[in-house]
Amino acid sequence: MDAGANTNPDAGLAALERVDMSDLLTRIERQVRPLCRRGQVASYIPALARVSPDKFGMAICIAGGGEYVVGDGDEPFSIQSVSKLFNLAFALEEIGEDIWGRVGREPSGMSFNSLILLEQENGVPRNPLINPGAIVVTDALLSRQPDWAEAFLGRMRQAAEAPGLAFDEEVFASEERHGDLNRATAWFLKAKGNLINHPDAALGAYFRHCSAAMSCRELARAGRFLIGPSEGEEICRSPHQRRRICAVMRTCGLYDAAGDFAYRVGLPAKSGVGGGVLAVSPGRYSVCVWSPALDVKGNSVAGVEALALLTDALEGAS
Amino acid sequence: MDAGANTNPDAGLAALERVDMSDLLTRIERQVRPLCRRGQVASYIPALARVSPDKFGMAICIAGGGEYVVGDGDEPFSIQSVSKLFNLAFALEEIGEDIWGRVGREPSGMSFNSLILLEQENGVPRNPLINPGAIVVTDALLSRQPDWAEAFLGRMRQAAEAPGLAFDEEVFASEERHGDLNRATAWFLKAKGNLINHPDAALGAYFRHCSAAMSCRELARAGRFLIGPSEGEEICRSPHQRRRICAVMRTCGLYDAAGDFAYRVGLPAKSGVGGGVLAVSPGRYSVCVWSPALDVKGNSVAGVEALALLTDALEGAS
Amino acid sequence: MDAGANTNPDAGLAALERVDMSDLLTRIERQVRPLCRRGQVASYIPALARVSPDKFGMAICIAGGGEYVVGDGDEPFSIQSVSKLFNLAFALEEIGEDIWGRVGREPSGMSFNSLILLEQENGVPRNPLINPGAIVVTDALLSRQPDWAEAFLGRMRQAAEAPGLAFDEEVFASEERHGDLNRATAWFLKAKGNLINHPDAALGAYFRHCSAAMSCRELARAGRFLIGPSEGEEICRSPHQRRRICAVMRTCGLYDAAGDFAYRVGLPAKSGVGGGVLAVSPGRYSVCVWSPALDVKGNSVAGVEALALLTDALEGAS
Amino acid sequence: MDAGANTNPDAGLAALERVDMSDLLTRIERQVRPLCRRGQVASYIPALARVSPDKFGMAICIAGGGEYVVGDGDEPFSIQSVSKLFNLAFALEEIGEDIWGRVGREPSGMSFNSLILLEQENGVPRNPLINPGAIVVTDALLSRQPDWAEAFLGRMRQAAEAPGLAFDEEVFASEERHGDLNRATAWFLKAKGNLINHPDAALGAYFRHCSAAMSCRELARAGRFLIGPSEGEEICRSPHQRRRICAVMRTCGLYDAAGDFAYRVGLPAKSGVGGGVLAVSPGRYSVCVWSPALDVKGNSVAGVEALALLTDALEGAS
Repeated sequence: MDAGANTNPDAGLAALERVDMSDLLTRIERQVRPLCRRGQVASYIPALARVSPDKFGMAICIAGGGEYVVGDGDEPFSIQSVSKLFNLAFALEEIGEDIWGRVGREPSGMSFNSLILLEQENGVPRNPLINPGAIVVTDALLSRQPDWAEAFLGRMRQAAEAPGLAFDEEVFASEERHGDLNRATAWFLKAKGNLINHPDAALGAYFRHCSAAMSCRELARAGRFLIGPSEGEEICRSPHQRRRICAVMRTCGLYDAAGDFAYRVGLPAKSGVGGGVLAVSPGRYSVCVWSPALDVKGNSVAGVEALALLTDALEGAS
Repeated sequence: MDAGANTNPDAGLAALERVDMSDLLTRIERQVRPLCRRGQVASYIPALARVSPDKFGMAICIAGGGEYVVGDGDEPFSIQSVSKLFNLAFALEEIGEDIWGRVGREPSGMSFNSLILLEQENGVPRNPLINPGAIVVTDALLSRQPDWAEAFLGRMRQAAEAPGLAFDEEVFASEERHGDLNRATAWFLKAKGNLINHPDAALGAYFRHCSAAMSCRELARAGRFLIGPSEGEEICRSPHQRRRICAVMRTCGLYDAAGDFAYRVGLPAKSGVGGGVLAVSPGRYSVCVWSPALDVKGNSVAGVEALALLTDALEGAS
Repeated sequence: MDAGANTNPDAGLAALERVDMSDLLTRIERQVRPLCRRGQVASYIPALARVSPDKFGMAICIAGGGEYVVGDGDEPFSIQSVSKLFNLAFALEEIGEDIWGRVGREPSGMSFNSLILLEQENGVPRNPLINPGAIVVTDALLSRQPDWAEAFLGRMRQAAEAPGLAFDEEVFASEERHGDLNRATAWFLKAKGNLINHPDAALGAYFRHCSAAMSCRELARAGRFLIGPSEGEEICRSPHQRRRICAVMRTCGLYDAAGDFAYRVGLPAKSGVGGGVLAVSPGRYSVCVWSPALDVKGNSVAGVEALALLTDALEGAS
Repeated sequence: MDAGANTNPDAGLAALERVDMSDLLTRIERQVRPLCRRGQVASYIPALARVSPDKFGMAICIAGGGEYVVGDGDEPFSIQSVSKLFNLAFALEEIGEDIWGRVGREPSGMSFNSLILLEQENGVPRNPLINPGAIVVTDALLSRQPDWAEAFLGRMRQAAEAPGLAFDEEVFASEERHGDLNRATAWFLKAKGNLINHPDAALGAYFRHCSAAMSCRELARAGRFLIGPSEGEEICRSPHQRRRICAVMRTCGLYDAAGDFAYRVGLPAKSGVGGGVLAVSPGRYSVCVWSPALDVKGNSVAGVEALALLTDALEGAS
């Protein structure tokens, strides 16, 4: 722990520069590898169930440059719900604050695909980072741009500096085939007047985003826009909006484990059932970790622990 | 907006020093005064209902020294639920992580005095900053120190540098007289085995804390321990715990408006139905604002707006 | 009130024979006509919203013969949820007790189309007389007989002695067009593994039953099978099952007003948003009443009052 | 099965007279005795936990006279929630329909001591046969008669023709000692303005009623008032009210198993965690069964089965 960093956070970035980041990541990898077999790989679609639980990757992008990658950090995985974060950024960029008329920004306190709150609150999802909220955001983007899924891909390629970045067609087909619960959600939103497009169209785009295959390095790069205004303009230009996206991530980014994650890690973050977690320390760095085995709340066991070790080591960073 | 602060947060505290803080607070006061009549003064107890809605005070304590106060910032008011934050800090200091065996740290997504989640989760309150959680925390402290209410007062006097700080006996009596819902909560906790003391004893101490009368200046001072490790040792010594208290405040500090507050203000904070809100920018400053009229979720209308203006002016601070 | 009937219920049917039924129905019609404008005609589909609220009809079929009709009792209306009762009877006849593996028989305590309980109970609807339960029952019948909607119609024609009985194609088309909430329900059931057919197919049959157009006289006739074993074999043969269908009607037949209806009327019954209510006094008579304006819980205002007057007049009957 | 009874219910009582009731009860006892060890004896208070699960008693009172008792039908047991039924009858007699301003009459769909619905419906209990509703009813009676518990006892002695009938002081003390959940409920009602007396006073009377010790024979006698107007005037005079009490029992008498019980047994009934169930066939008989081992919903396993066998044998009776 770098106690000095906590005493004087102004020295945050400078302190970061004194850390041997390669060494730190290597030590973290060594510590969390044994956790890879704790938890369960997502099994709701066959394409995800097949992924080896032994994968572990991590990548960090430092403000102003500098990139460190360990383990399987260059192997693409299914980003799943991490895509919700980018969709929110795109929506704030394209549509602006009006999006908040269709979706709230409070933590849900319930499972990510629960219809209970959605019914209690009459079709307005609690926040854009749970399934119903992300479907609404996708629907709003789709209404402005009929080929939205392709546009999404184009921007992610640019942000990740990864021209070959693509959707995993097998994962996409699998999502379509096993998407009945999301279909129920989309029809419920439609019934409540909070879906513009046909549910099949909205879900088509939604499943596409979720099926994007990206590596830790690529996701950490794409997440740089949350570090500060000098980077990531292809995702979101307004510093104001970036700060606010971080706020939503802090309270809603890890499903119903947001509070526990805030307590252990303290960074704005977004997780996905593919086992990826993207986090950011504003002004300092973005970081992505990947390990497929999930805890009961749907978050990567080894991934969350790796981030806890990272922030403990860089304490005061957030 | 100080864009530079966002570009380079390392310059955060330095940037702060260049701000004319007196002038900023004066401008904020002028802007939010017209909001004082929006919302409703808490009316569940007569002693609170009598407070004039025209009060507005604000005080800020800068890291390393420097204190700025405007309006009614030296007039004592009922701190109410802001006390929950200090109780949590005391509990982590005295009892340590074991407290988390009796209370969670997830946002509740529901009103601060709802029994629904408490029943669904079998008597383990969602977090220590809602009523049921704060009653459990008080109960734990009371079990270690039978005169806990007095001890609480002693520490608050020290932290606030306010030897005359006292409980408002009228508010206390009023709380006792109108505390039936909290009594229901305490008996429910007792029934579920999550209350050690008799409900009357636990509530006695709980109502005492809530009835402490403090000014913005005093609360901002007492909140300095969250800025960083060099101050506030009388509240909580561990830097680790301070960071974690901030995490809980971020997700749970404003009842079921935590997400909206995070979005608009972005600082860890705790509000009370007396109209006070204490917030902190780690490494930089603590701030307390007071205006009695509340929105439907129980948070000070003018107070929250004042904090939003403050953080907009010091953007990048958090 | 016929106090004697209550003293000696054995004289129930005999007592009934001494009542001037034509006169009684005429008096009831006169009393409840003024209530026809209280409440709201169902407006969720245009085809129902167009029905005049001034309609009132009533028909009663006495055990062993005898049929009395007043007002608009020979005018067909949309039976809507009254069809759920017949589907349950058909399912018990065709499938038997196994149907209870897919649907419960407890009152829901919630609105007829709520998804909350359905989620809490993992896709097993509370009972067969609310929408999710009726969709499951329809699905089970459809799996045994692909042209189930036609078979349903055939049996209803026979039971109602109404060869011309038909689906109202306009209502059916309207249901299809505005059935998004039911679609959400069906997809949710599918997601939970409690729907065999494609949601569109199950809902197609379900909407067809709901769109059947029948008069009070026809529905009262079709309901005779609940009076006793000597009639109505085309609906359900087992006396045991008939008694049990009555039990389900008693606790679940009037949405979340079952308790109030039991208190005021005391007969097993099933209501529909078309304004029809079919009730039965086992061993004595079946009765159908129709008035389109509904109370907030979806039951016919004048219809329920007419039944309360009827049972008050024939007290002890049930 | 007596099919004739179903064909012509007018012959109901006459048919009953042809049944060899002693023989029937003996056969039922033999059939259900093996079930006595299924389920769990209530353990929330020591005084109940001590009762032997091997007890089984049954008593039936025929309209117009005739009383049959088998097994342990003359051994007193704790009537517990069966007392709620009598309290409701007394309240309708003493206070009349006004009681419905303070308590509903819909099934709760939830556990008997859940606070969830109570909160959702703002302190108005769903019905008078669950704990919160019974506490409200007791409170209303207590407000009219400060020594209500004694008055209750006096009336029960008269109705049961049991001058020695008394409260079980040990059970009462045990209830008081372990009544925290009911205390939470009472304080919640107080907080919502739906309790006139101090919670301790209301619960004192409530716990007293629950602790009354009565045998099957005595309870069956006390339940005769529900058979018809010629008996039981000491409980409730109005035939209208009796019919309505039956309606509430049908939908709310067996906690959240009301629907299943209606399906299997079909009689209005009220159960208690002491293992007793009192049921009535209006116009024909009252019956009480006792076996301490309960199913997961709190109803006597052997008791419910005994009633199912009884009504199967006397089919058409209800």
